[in-house]
Amino acid sequence: MSAGPGILILGIDPGSIKTGWGVIRKEGQRMIHVDNGLIMPPAGMDFKDRVAFIFKGVLDTIDAFAPHHLSLEDIFMAKNAQSALKLGHVRGAVIAAAFLRGVPVAQYTASHVKQAVTGNGRAEKFQIQEMVRVILGLREIAQEDASDALANALTHAFTLR
Amino acid sequence: MSAGPGILILGIDPGSIKTGWGVIRKEGQRMIHVDNGLIMPPAGMDFKDRVAFIFKGVLDTIDAFAPHHLSLEDIFMAKNAQSALKLGHVRGAVIAAAFLRGVPVAQYTASHVKQAVTGNGRAEKFQIQEMVRVILGLREIAQEDASDALANALTHAFTLR
Repeated sequence: MSAGPGILILGIDPGSIKTGWGVIRKEGQRMIHVDNGLIMPPAGMDFKDRVAFIFKGVLDTIDAFAPHHLSLEDIFMAKNAQSALKLGHVRGAVIAAAFLRGVPVAQYTASHVKQAVTGNGRAEKFQIQEMVRVILGLREIAQEDASDALANALTHAFTLR
Repeated sequence: MSAGPGILILGIDPGSIKTGWGVIRKEGQRMIHVDNGLIMPPAGMDFKDRVAFIFKGVLDTIDAFAPHHLSLEDIFMAKNAQSALKLGHVRGAVIAAAFLRGVPVAQYTASHVKQAVTGNGRAEKFQIQEMVRVILGLREIAQEDASDALANALTHAFTLR
């Protein structure tokens, strides 16, 4: 899948329930949608097995698309210690997968992504999703977490300009 | 290093500054110390690179000793969201490394470990360290985080009885 010109970027929106991913190709100033999806551990799966499932899912996605860069949503502060602990596990597994395959990791906060994609660091969720759709010429808005992952990938692509 | 009878258990005390590890061999009711140490990312290293460094360190430790089980200190609640986020990353990387090498992961809370090693769930740090030393016949108490890792490994070994 990595044949063709340009720079392939895998965006990741980490979460223990759903981890969104999106792959784009930057060709000059053109941003081309390649694919997007979700890594969803089965409901009821033990937490450590969810983390391993997501690790495997990210490895498989890297192997399928051979991205040049991985762009991961960063976080400075979570709602509470419990959600921070869970999100930390998922981000640690994503970083481990990227390291194992030698893919450099860039990190952008949600407000940075909003600013980069819509020009407004306080944009609403639907505004970002609609901008992602327009920039990548999608017929429909991508599923929420996958759209966030594509927004992350776009943010990194803009940074590479 | 995995030659010889018995069950090899790798205990891990996760931390982004120092991750302690300890390997023991359970031969019947005998608990034999194999080795212990620390995985310490260089000071000043970027956080995501620390996570990758620890992931690599755990992979290397698994490859060096070929443990049958990995026993990881569990956590239910951290001091605050920031420390929970950091610890989560490290635990996620450890779980990823164990998954990659097919080593099953057991998890025990600190109070469970205290109870298992000293018979007292509220034992002081030095009491646990001293019991680890005595059980494994070490001449000196192991470095704190490595001792905690050995205590975790022992807890799993006792559970296998």
